[in-house]
Amino acid sequence: MISKAIPFKVKLVAYNPQGELVVAIAAKMSRSRHGWEHHLDMPPQEIETWIRDSIIHGYWSVLEHSSYTFSIEGISRVASHQFVRHRIASYTQMSHRFAKPKDEYYKPVVPPSFKDVHGYETTYQEYLRLLNQGVPEEDARYVLPNGVNTNLVVTMNARELYNFFGLRLCTRAQWEIRAVAWLMLDEVKRVHPILFRYAGPNCIIHENFVRPEEDPVSLDQEKVFVSSRCIEGVPREGIWKCIRNSRTILEKIK
Amino acid sequence: MISKAIPFKVKLVAYNPQGELVVAIAAKMSRSRHGWEHHLDMPPQEIETWIRDSIIHGYWSVLEHSSYTFSIEGISRVASHQFVRHRIASYTQMSHRFAKPKDEYYKPVVPPSFKDVHGYETTYQEYLRLLNQGVPEEDARYVLPNGVNTNLVVTMNARELYNFFGLRLCTRAQWEIRAVAWLMLDEVKRVHPILFRYAGPNCIIHENFVRPEEDPVSLDQEKVFVSSRCIEGVPREGIWKCIRNSRTILEKIK
Amino acid sequence: MISKAIPFKVKLVAYNPQGELVVAIAAKMSRSRHGWEHHLDMPPQEIETWIRDSIIHGYWSVLEHSSYTFSIEGISRVASHQFVRHRIASYTQMSHRFAKPKDEYYKPVVPPSFKDVHGYETTYQEYLRLLNQGVPEEDARYVLPNGVNTNLVVTMNARELYNFFGLRLCTRAQWEIRAVAWLMLDEVKRVHPILFRYAGPNCIIHENFVRPEEDPVSLDQEKVFVSSRCIEGVPREGIWKCIRNSRTILEKIK
Amino acid sequence: MISKAIPFKVKLVAYNPQGELVVAIAAKMSRSRHGWEHHLDMPPQEIETWIRDSIIHGYWSVLEHSSYTFSIEGISRVASHQFVRHRIASYTQMSHRFAKPKDEYYKPVVPPSFKDVHGYETTYQEYLRLLNQGVPEEDARYVLPNGVNTNLVVTMNARELYNFFGLRLCTRAQWEIRAVAWLMLDEVKRVHPILFRYAGPNCIIHENFVRPEEDPVSLDQEKVFVSSRCIEGVPREGIWKCIRNSRTILEKIK
Repeated sequence: MISKAIPFKVKLVAYNPQGELVVAIAAKMSRSRHGWEHHLDMPPQEIETWIRDSIIHGYWSVLEHSSYTFSIEGISRVASHQFVRHRIASYTQMSHRFAKPKDEYYKPVVPPSFKDVHGYETTYQEYLRLLNQGVPEEDARYVLPNGVNTNLVVTMNARELYNFFGLRLCTRAQWEIRAVAWLMLDEVKRVHPILFRYAGPNCIIHENFVRPEEDPVSLDQEKVFVSSRCIEGVPREGIWKCIRNSRTILEKIK
Repeated sequence: MISKAIPFKVKLVAYNPQGELVVAIAAKMSRSRHGWEHHLDMPPQEIETWIRDSIIHGYWSVLEHSSYTFSIEGISRVASHQFVRHRIASYTQMSHRFAKPKDEYYKPVVPPSFKDVHGYETTYQEYLRLLNQGVPEEDARYVLPNGVNTNLVVTMNARELYNFFGLRLCTRAQWEIRAVAWLMLDEVKRVHPILFRYAGPNCIIHENFVRPEEDPVSLDQEKVFVSSRCIEGVPREGIWKCIRNSRTILEKIK
Repeated sequence: MISKAIPFKVKLVAYNPQGELVVAIAAKMSRSRHGWEHHLDMPPQEIETWIRDSIIHGYWSVLEHSSYTFSIEGISRVASHQFVRHRIASYTQMSHRFAKPKDEYYKPVVPPSFKDVHGYETTYQEYLRLLNQGVPEEDARYVLPNGVNTNLVVTMNARELYNFFGLRLCTRAQWEIRAVAWLMLDEVKRVHPILFRYAGPNCIIHENFVRPEEDPVSLDQEKVFVSSRCIEGVPREGIWKCIRNSRTILEKIK
Repeated sequence: MISKAIPFKVKLVAYNPQGELVVAIAAKMSRSRHGWEHHLDMPPQEIETWIRDSIIHGYWSVLEHSSYTFSIEGISRVASHQFVRHRIASYTQMSHRFAKPKDEYYKPVVPPSFKDVHGYETTYQEYLRLLNQGVPEEDARYVLPNGVNTNLVVTMNARELYNFFGLRLCTRAQWEIRAVAWLMLDEVKRVHPILFRYAGPNCIIHENFVRPEEDPVSLDQEKVFVSSRCIEGVPREGIWKCIRNSRTILEKIK
């Protein structure tokens, strides 16, 4: 029942296909006297310009007009507890008060650093024993491990996603939520590559606030940083290596 | 240039057509061990049940997974100032620092209670005089009237819309934002009639928290209230008349 | 090391002693042309009236001007995970990535429904074994039980506290966070009895929206409800018994 | 009645004198196994270190545990409309629906760029005429100028203040809200100089994310920037002059 293969799934389940256009029109309308319909036939190149300029100059609020809903299934309660600390987002979580993680639904997450897995099976037997004693589900779950699996429906707008990615793609983020974040980034870049072109860990975000505007940096191409360190203290020379390391988590959990 | 015909437009410009399904699946997933895909073929009747039960029992958070973007054009800065007090929402506003409300773009809102309109034209001449003197746009606008027109792009999720409607459909709300709220309600009910069936002023919302669950009330059909007063102090017997009065604002501004 | 005595502590550690005056002045200033200093000598009776009227009519925003910081020590991660779902609040949590819950700091919470405690000790041995193997702390904690103890610093304003109490004092709330909520209520009522007089589970909050204004209800005195049910479905006759039941959790955990 | 002397007042009216200690203890508790009381006698030097490190590394959430309430009196509705766009804050505003800005209470704000003031008096006469005609206050105010004075009670925590200052101390911010921001900064630095040492326009905030940690920059002392531009596009060499320019607004409005 318990294996080291990582069981979690990250899937973008709802979003507005026109999200990039919506963000670009909103950005333009703050400087225009025309209404929405006037801007509906904005050419792709102009969409790109409005979005790029908004991000490079920190005009984040327009990014709030496009939202994304993910189903994140099989992550541990260690990760879900970290996730819900992001307050500008909407969450619905599988409740262990009502849905028992039993039988094939008990799939606790095993960190890649574990050589073997002992505690999860005995813990599970104790959980069953308590249920059989008549202990309510909401109490019996106290003995389940922190690594126990749960499901989470998460909705975030593009601005909050930039913030979430800034913190959670960073190599200092805990491995599981970091893996989830890289998978979420892949999902949104697939559907809205223009809007998420400059998303990345905070080193990327902050660098784009302080470097020449005509030459922004993204995860797509390594460029020399102006920043002398990232916000976590990694010196200029080590930043790209640090970013590459961060993403290797996806290989470790396959 | 200045007429009493109300110039404002309220248009739903972006939303997810599947929003009702998304909310219903999220509600179900909190009590289920299955993942998103398992629930994708939920029948319409079940969608309705999950949504209704969430609203009647105040389980509002699942309604956050469906968002709506409106373009609200031609409202006064009196109304826009009230609007942006709703903090759980996203706004992009036409800036009078960059977009001059001149010529055909100067269309200040005239309240229905005005018999005639005097001040708006002299104010406008003063605005032009200041601009000609070289006063910057961001300062010249200080003399423009509070009634001056502006445009607003607003994104709210369904939970916040319920809250917004609760406050702003009420007859105690100021007439202009009230008119905007009724028009917004029409827009969302047109596309998501199930999700917004129980939306209404706060008298309706609160009544559904305290009356028999099997008999919820909505704007569609007048029923005797259990509440002895609404939150604004209108006694039980006067509530329906008060609601009907509130909506008549739409006739006054035509 | 592991005992059934509940280890948690709930302590109000920071607040503004003048909070009630601040809320009352804010309420008055929305209707007054005078500045702050004009209102500084408001008599106690008037403070009470402004606060009461704000709550009875759902004019909640003025309650945001008074904030409360609690140190909540020794609760389980089951409870802390629920706690941080309240997004309009500020949290700092003891991190098990940095602070190992070892030796005298391992005090997992034991639900009152447990007849005996087996799993916690073996789990702890497994945790130590992993640490000795060189597994990083942030991974070893995956085997710790959900009931493991943590500390939380929480800041909430009075409006959010009313909302938190509405949900978490209710008998349907999970026992541990419910116990924490009752202890928090005692703390704030001790210092600001006027501001928190009408705080209670949602049955109380909603009842005050629909009953005669001159006769509000509070936890201090049982009165017949106008509501025919509470939002959780308990019928009128059962509500007071339900509230009394809810608070008995404090006796069970002593 | 109408003069160019700026009428507005910015006063810190409520805060917790122990706010710096509260923030420092919260920061420490995330890495400690001890409870609140254990940290109560933290020496001043250590308070400073925890606060500085939190800011330099963007660990902002601990700054949320200290809140500040301001009474801002006599600003224009141009400025108040911008102010309330900051959503992570609490507001109570003088309502022109209930409090008529008449007689000595009509003190519209005159921008320093105005050579003379014409429009405000005729507008006022029109306002009086409408009131005399029986037009309700909430409608008559449509003809009042955008510059009309209002009062605002604002509560923000230290994290949001850093964000507010980042945007509104900047020379690109509109002059009136910029003046208010500089006055607010003076108020909080007076009472909590450690907590607000690194507050400033966004050029300062971002610079501290990318420069050597052991040498942070603040408004107290000009140092050469690592950033090649600020987020608004001002090149490295021009940044300090730009900051000095921004604050000169305080002299212009005396």
